[in-house]
Amino acid sequence: MSIRSTALAVALPGILCLSIPGGFSEQPATELRQKIRHYRLAHERDIVAEFVQLLSLPNHATNATDIERNARTIQERLEHRSVEVRMLRITGAPPVVYGELRTAGTRPTIGIYAHYDGQPVDAAQWRSPPFGPVLVAGGHQIAFGSVDRYDPESRIYARSASDDKAPIQAIMTALDALRSLKAPLAVNLKLLFEGEEEMNSPHLAEILSTYPPALDADVWLISDGPVHQSRRMQVFYGVRGEIDLEMTVYGAARPLHSGHYGNWAPNPIMLLTHLLDSMRDANSQILIPHFYDDVRPLTATEQGVLARTPGIDAELRHELAIAVPEGEGATLAQQVLKPAINVRGIHAGHVGTQAANIISTEATASFDFRLVPNQTPDHVRKEIEEHIARQGFFIAHDTPDLALRRAHARIAKLEWGPGYPAYRTSIDNPVTQATFRALEQAVGGPVVEVVSVGAAIPMYIFEGEHHTPVIGLPIANHDNNQHAYDENLRLQNMWDAIEMYGTLVATLGHDKSAWPQH
Amino acid sequence: MSIRSTALAVALPGILCLSIPGGFSEQPATELRQKIRHYRLAHERDIVAEFVQLLSLPNHATNATDIERNARTIQERLEHRSVEVRMLRITGAPPVVYGELRTAGTRPTIGIYAHYDGQPVDAAQWRSPPFGPVLVAGGHQIAFGSVDRYDPESRIYARSASDDKAPIQAIMTALDALRSLKAPLAVNLKLLFEGEEEMNSPHLAEILSTYPPALDADVWLISDGPVHQSRRMQVFYGVRGEIDLEMTVYGAARPLHSGHYGNWAPNPIMLLTHLLDSMRDANSQILIPHFYDDVRPLTATEQGVLARTPGIDAELRHELAIAVPEGEGATLAQQVLKPAINVRGIHAGHVGTQAANIISTEATASFDFRLVPNQTPDHVRKEIEEHIARQGFFIAHDTPDLALRRAHARIAKLEWGPGYPAYRTSIDNPVTQATFRALEQAVGGPVVEVVSVGAAIPMYIFEGEHHTPVIGLPIANHDNNQHAYDENLRLQNMWDAIEMYGTLVATLGHDKSAWPQH
Repeated sequence: MSIRSTALAVALPGILCLSIPGGFSEQPATELRQKIRHYRLAHERDIVAEFVQLLSLPNHATNATDIERNARTIQERLEHRSVEVRMLRITGAPPVVYGELRTAGTRPTIGIYAHYDGQPVDAAQWRSPPFGPVLVAGGHQIAFGSVDRYDPESRIYARSASDDKAPIQAIMTALDALRSLKAPLAVNLKLLFEGEEEMNSPHLAEILSTYPPALDADVWLISDGPVHQSRRMQVFYGVRGEIDLEMTVYGAARPLHSGHYGNWAPNPIMLLTHLLDSMRDANSQILIPHFYDDVRPLTATEQGVLARTPGIDAELRHELAIAVPEGEGATLAQQVLKPAINVRGIHAGHVGTQAANIISTEATASFDFRLVPNQTPDHVRKEIEEHIARQGFFIAHDTPDLALRRAHARIAKLEWGPGYPAYRTSIDNPVTQATFRALEQAVGGPVVEVVSVGAAIPMYIFEGEHHTPVIGLPIANHDNNQHAYDENLRLQNMWDAIEMYGTLVATLGHDKSAWPQH
Repeated sequence: MSIRSTALAVALPGILCLSIPGGFSEQPATELRQKIRHYRLAHERDIVAEFVQLLSLPNHATNATDIERNARTIQERLEHRSVEVRMLRITGAPPVVYGELRTAGTRPTIGIYAHYDGQPVDAAQWRSPPFGPVLVAGGHQIAFGSVDRYDPESRIYARSASDDKAPIQAIMTALDALRSLKAPLAVNLKLLFEGEEEMNSPHLAEILSTYPPALDADVWLISDGPVHQSRRMQVFYGVRGEIDLEMTVYGAARPLHSGHYGNWAPNPIMLLTHLLDSMRDANSQILIPHFYDDVRPLTATEQGVLARTPGIDAELRHELAIAVPEGEGATLAQQVLKPAINVRGIHAGHVGTQAANIISTEATASFDFRLVPNQTPDHVRKEIEEHIARQGFFIAHDTPDLALRRAHARIAKLEWGPGYPAYRTSIDNPVTQATFRALEQAVGGPVVEVVSVGAAIPMYIFEGEHHTPVIGLPIANHDNNQHAYDENLRLQNMWDAIEMYGTLVATLGHDKSAWPQH
């Protein structure tokens, strides 16, 4: 840990300024990285063209036809790269595209996870069609293929450009580069691309149980989410869990004129706002009794990593125009180690030019609850339902009929989405340590370490029975509008990822002392 | 007053069971009403056909082309009935269609007001197109013109079927009936049809100031809103005022992944819910200090009318599936005599299948504040802005730029719509009394009196300098989905209105003792 902490302490954010002394030769990594860069510089047009085709495929997991087209496209492209592909399927779920590239000799096995499905889109909000990728540099749209080399600061706008088709494209291009360079892999490589991550991976565990060998690996790298806000590559050792909820409360059985009935007909918007406010204050504190009881304290190692994680709060506040963040002065890194109630949407009646003078019949809020170790979705669900009942609400799980509405002054319909727990790997595990060292060599500079990112990724599934280390290794730019409209990928992030993946899979196994010998 | 209160005390809701003894012969009214009914029975197909044409014209006041087409259609139809029409105009506002039908001899002058514009529509919510009227009886759609007489319980579904094109059609048909019967008018009749009522009549006062004689009358009858929930005809002596507000609060400058930033980036939904909850509890009580200070107590006469107003709360609660109304046990009639904060819409992020795991950049609520005498829009606006500022919000009236957002932790953009005050006429005024007596004769039974309805209608404008009595005289069914989707008019309400208007304008001037002589 000492080498890494020294490197981080003197590194300037955003500048890769150090080569790392280590227990084995670094020269091959540096040379290989340069060669992969030259390969990329010579093939930018083709790389982007292949990526744009992938981004043109709508990929919301609820559309079976769309999602199948994505899976088959990825399958064909992997097979074209000599990867042995299996489609792991269960009924009613998008397939997991699972590929293996075995290497002669005893090598460590690394698995790389990404997902090919995307968040829903509200096309009206986008400046360009979510599935009609465009390239923008300096505010101007650039025609694809119009130049041989693109401005690395230009961005491709499309749903899943960053989240999470970018790693899929990057690893495939990295394999192309290694083949072109005749550089052998130093690992057995497993690729596992999920099609339902943005739905909270409701079937991933079950799918993997249909083919248990898929999970066998010495380490799993989970490529999802953004790199550090300083634009440096980062790893994360954990994630928050998540459980989603749609909550609807009710007023009168039909919409009423707000003049004739205002003050008498219950206004479901006000029932909802008071219920939300009973759950969470405006400063992120959760008001549900005992909600924090299950939160596991940080270990000493985790506290050390947290203390070293570069702070970017001031820059972020400026960039995001946040005068005062939530959290009473805690840093972003500290705040994502706590559970969170996020109200991601609220909707009732109309606003703006569509506003009409009525009292709505119902009001709906949509939540994503963020969990941390050792909270479980089941326990959180129970605590929230008990809290809502204590606020005087009858809890329904189906739409209440008139008889039920006549019988109860307050009814909350709760529709729970799938959820899964948080995860945090052991930072002290020697495999975790060796992987991190190899990664710093692969990128040729210090890599930011993060105890846990705030996002939810089903890392817990990959731990398996053998407590395999599962490490987050994202590649997208942090300012990618992930999950929102105008999602984008900065091209330099794709270029960095190609070099990183290529160098890593060609060097990770070199340090024999660090890896369990199979 | 004693005759009416006796009549009401023994009347069963919904049943017209009494003939009213009065100071002058009632026979002409009864006979005339029967003749008008026969006329209507012979012409239902044509009446409905003309009404359907009017309802086919989209009529949101912000669409100048649409609204002008409505005004011209009404103008032509009035002129066809020998009404002398002037279009009262100012730049940038829909015209007021103003018509006069003068009668020989000294007669009282009565004005009848209605409006031809409608609320905005969200066509996706409607079962039939808002401007493609359909007739439905017993759950089945009936082709217009397929029968000579329609089921009086059938309903026409279309925007403005009840609010507020129904009175316009009814008065025109009443004039047709009188002409056919060769029955002369007993009044000088003024018709004043506004095109911007659903926008809160922002130009009505100014338009009428361009032609002051339009307002000269002995009494104004304001035909807007629904009849009593018991289906009996009613008058109202007052209305609430209104002022509208769009309120937007802000989070980060771009949408953020709720996992990566949840607990740190301010969630504007939570800022908004806490702000709303500081203004109003879930039980209708307004929490803004001094908000009730300007509320004028009821006079003894008003208290008497309130005590006699038939209660329909139990039936309404059943029909609307309201287990417990707002207001701590107060009746609907009592509750609409108080000011109200109605949140008519709230919108941020997405819910349901469109829900995405983001923290929104802003959240918006839309309000209609309901005022009572002697509150004024200006004072209410000031009280609300002061309250919001006390909650720590910087108040903006334009969209804040990044510099402003970096400078203030909480910003509320307030966009005030036009507003106007409440109104309540003098119930003790002899003209008010005489009009009420004539109306009961015209309908042949007791008419419900209401101190003030909860809706906002610009009655205050019609009072003029001479404190002319202004009386609300609605005709639509109460269950008309006014302002919402599937707005409808029950045909029997149209039939009743035709008889009422026809009989009233042919008999109102008969009681010479009651009217000021010109």
